[in-house]
Amino acid sequence: MGGDHAPHSTLEGARLALAAHEDLHLLLVGDETRLKSLAIHYGLRGDLATRMEIVHAPTVVSMDDKATCILKDKKDSSIRIAAQLVRDGRADGIVSMGHTGAAMVASKMILGTLPGVDRPCLAMAMPSKKGSPTILLDVGANVDSKPEHIAQFAIMGALYAEEVLGIDHPKIGILNVGEEDGKGTDTTKNASLVLKQLDLNFCGNAEGRDIWNGNFDVIACDGFVGNVVLKSSEALAEGVFYGLRDAISQSWISMLGGLLVRPAMRKFLKRMDYEEYGGAPLLGVKGVSIIGHGRSNGRAVANAVRAALRGCEHHVVERIQDSLAALLPQSTAN
Amino acid sequence: MGGDHAPHSTLEGARLALAAHEDLHLLLVGDETRLKSLAIHYGLRGDLATRMEIVHAPTVVSMDDKATCILKDKKDSSIRIAAQLVRDGRADGIVSMGHTGAAMVASKMILGTLPGVDRPCLAMAMPSKKGSPTILLDVGANVDSKPEHIAQFAIMGALYAEEVLGIDHPKIGILNVGEEDGKGTDTTKNASLVLKQLDLNFCGNAEGRDIWNGNFDVIACDGFVGNVVLKSSEALAEGVFYGLRDAISQSWISMLGGLLVRPAMRKFLKRMDYEEYGGAPLLGVKGVSIIGHGRSNGRAVANAVRAALRGCEHHVVERIQDSLAALLPQSTAN
Repeated sequence: MGGDHAPHSTLEGARLALAAHEDLHLLLVGDETRLKSLAIHYGLRGDLATRMEIVHAPTVVSMDDKATCILKDKKDSSIRIAAQLVRDGRADGIVSMGHTGAAMVASKMILGTLPGVDRPCLAMAMPSKKGSPTILLDVGANVDSKPEHIAQFAIMGALYAEEVLGIDHPKIGILNVGEEDGKGTDTTKNASLVLKQLDLNFCGNAEGRDIWNGNFDVIACDGFVGNVVLKSSEALAEGVFYGLRDAISQSWISMLGGLLVRPAMRKFLKRMDYEEYGGAPLLGVKGVSIIGHGRSNGRAVANAVRAALRGCEHHVVERIQDSLAALLPQSTAN
Repeated sequence: MGGDHAPHSTLEGARLALAAHEDLHLLLVGDETRLKSLAIHYGLRGDLATRMEIVHAPTVVSMDDKATCILKDKKDSSIRIAAQLVRDGRADGIVSMGHTGAAMVASKMILGTLPGVDRPCLAMAMPSKKGSPTILLDVGANVDSKPEHIAQFAIMGALYAEEVLGIDHPKIGILNVGEEDGKGTDTTKNASLVLKQLDLNFCGNAEGRDIWNGNFDVIACDGFVGNVVLKSSEALAEGVFYGLRDAISQSWISMLGGLLVRPAMRKFLKRMDYEEYGGAPLLGVKGVSIIGHGRSNGRAVANAVRAALRGCEHHVVERIQDSLAALLPQSTAN
């Protein structure tokens, strides 16, 4: 029920996802009457409808609500009920396009955090020139991360890159202001020391430019810097796109040229499209949880469902738990 | 002598700058023999040559050198001698395209820091959709900034925006992970408290997207996040540009279209061009110091000289000193 175009884009996404994945079963959580009447309109009938169920949730977290409202005033909100379905084993994962904070709180508090994880983190697949994305994490505003948190982000990101994105032996970096070992803060230096001791493909410091340049597959950082980089990159990429489009529409000649370059531009911009990779996984909680952009359209919702499905099929949650236990045995005792 | 294309782009930039500004006098600091023979080749003769002088410096800081080498091994390097010329009153400002760290150390240690400034900071004019740039500072990797440092960055950035870029009553923000007052780290919250008490146009928290969206004229942040945002934005903007160009060159039809849209694209991309604003000023030192990109071509060098000239004409250094004394009287006692 959350997100700018909900429940329309959610229903459209549900149809696309059910049509694309034969084994997929979806529980749509929200206002039952509204969803039932709209579902048919969005083509959720016949075979597709047999793999879909509507679970009633009377309230929805709005963008003006505090993230923690789901713990008190909005215990019957769609995001909390969705999290409860996963906790109770009725579902394998959550996909939400609503209030990011509420989805994070629901995932952390209702599903719970995995042993060995101090702080769950939000991972974002950033477009890069190497074709496959660079996983940047945390982008979810876990501010003031400690070295061991950043090391945990790196481990979880590497597993996600391997299992869900199919990147073999992912190259891991720590986001920093320079490549050299001595650069950065005490936090980045100590995180680097932790990662060097582990059996991982840790390749040292990554700079801001490496997110796009594709020299790393996974770049770990504190949530403050990750969030700022994500939001500035989204705005810049969009700005370039709309800026060029407006510039081209200024004259008939360039508009004609624009028609001719459009297919080539589309192909390139698809690679730039943050929606292509389908939402950001919240890693480190006991269940698959994918948090999409509030603006998501049907295709973005379907891609987020695909990401959740892959996460389930590849047992990402269990794999993260096992890896953390193997790599950081001391922290599982916490 | 520093920079990827030095001294060629420096000489080309010198000619462009001398031709554009009738009152400008330039001291070219570097290998005298080499500069003398090349100067003529780059058109530095006649009237232009009368407003130019070559000051010999036997060594140059290379990219492999440590920034602090100018304090010990390379006391006769071009950047150190240039800083000494300003300290000794023979020049009003420095422009360098070489080793960023060395230029910062030379400016801080040879010129010295202004009273009231704890840490000089590097300011970058980031392209924004509002047309005029957003000043982001610090981008110079002053890591682990304290709240009062961030407040000082904001004050210095506002003055620079007003005096050099001609932005009236600039809107100031603190870079953060959300707009709301409670967001961020203790550092951002306390920096915000400091700025609220001052007679400034402080508009609260800015998010990553605001750098491009242009809702603020000046955005202050710790140098770690500023540096990462600057480098990621540069790489992304360049990546989009080259990516589109490559995509367009894939077929004859789109190449034809590319020719037709080129003037429109050029016009737009000029606004995106980091070189257009001519280097990043290091604010808070006793003299004008502009640090350009190592890759700078002649136009970028000339724009950096223009920025230095405006800084001198508008007495930015004195204005910063006066403003800090008026706004933060307690810190001038340090």
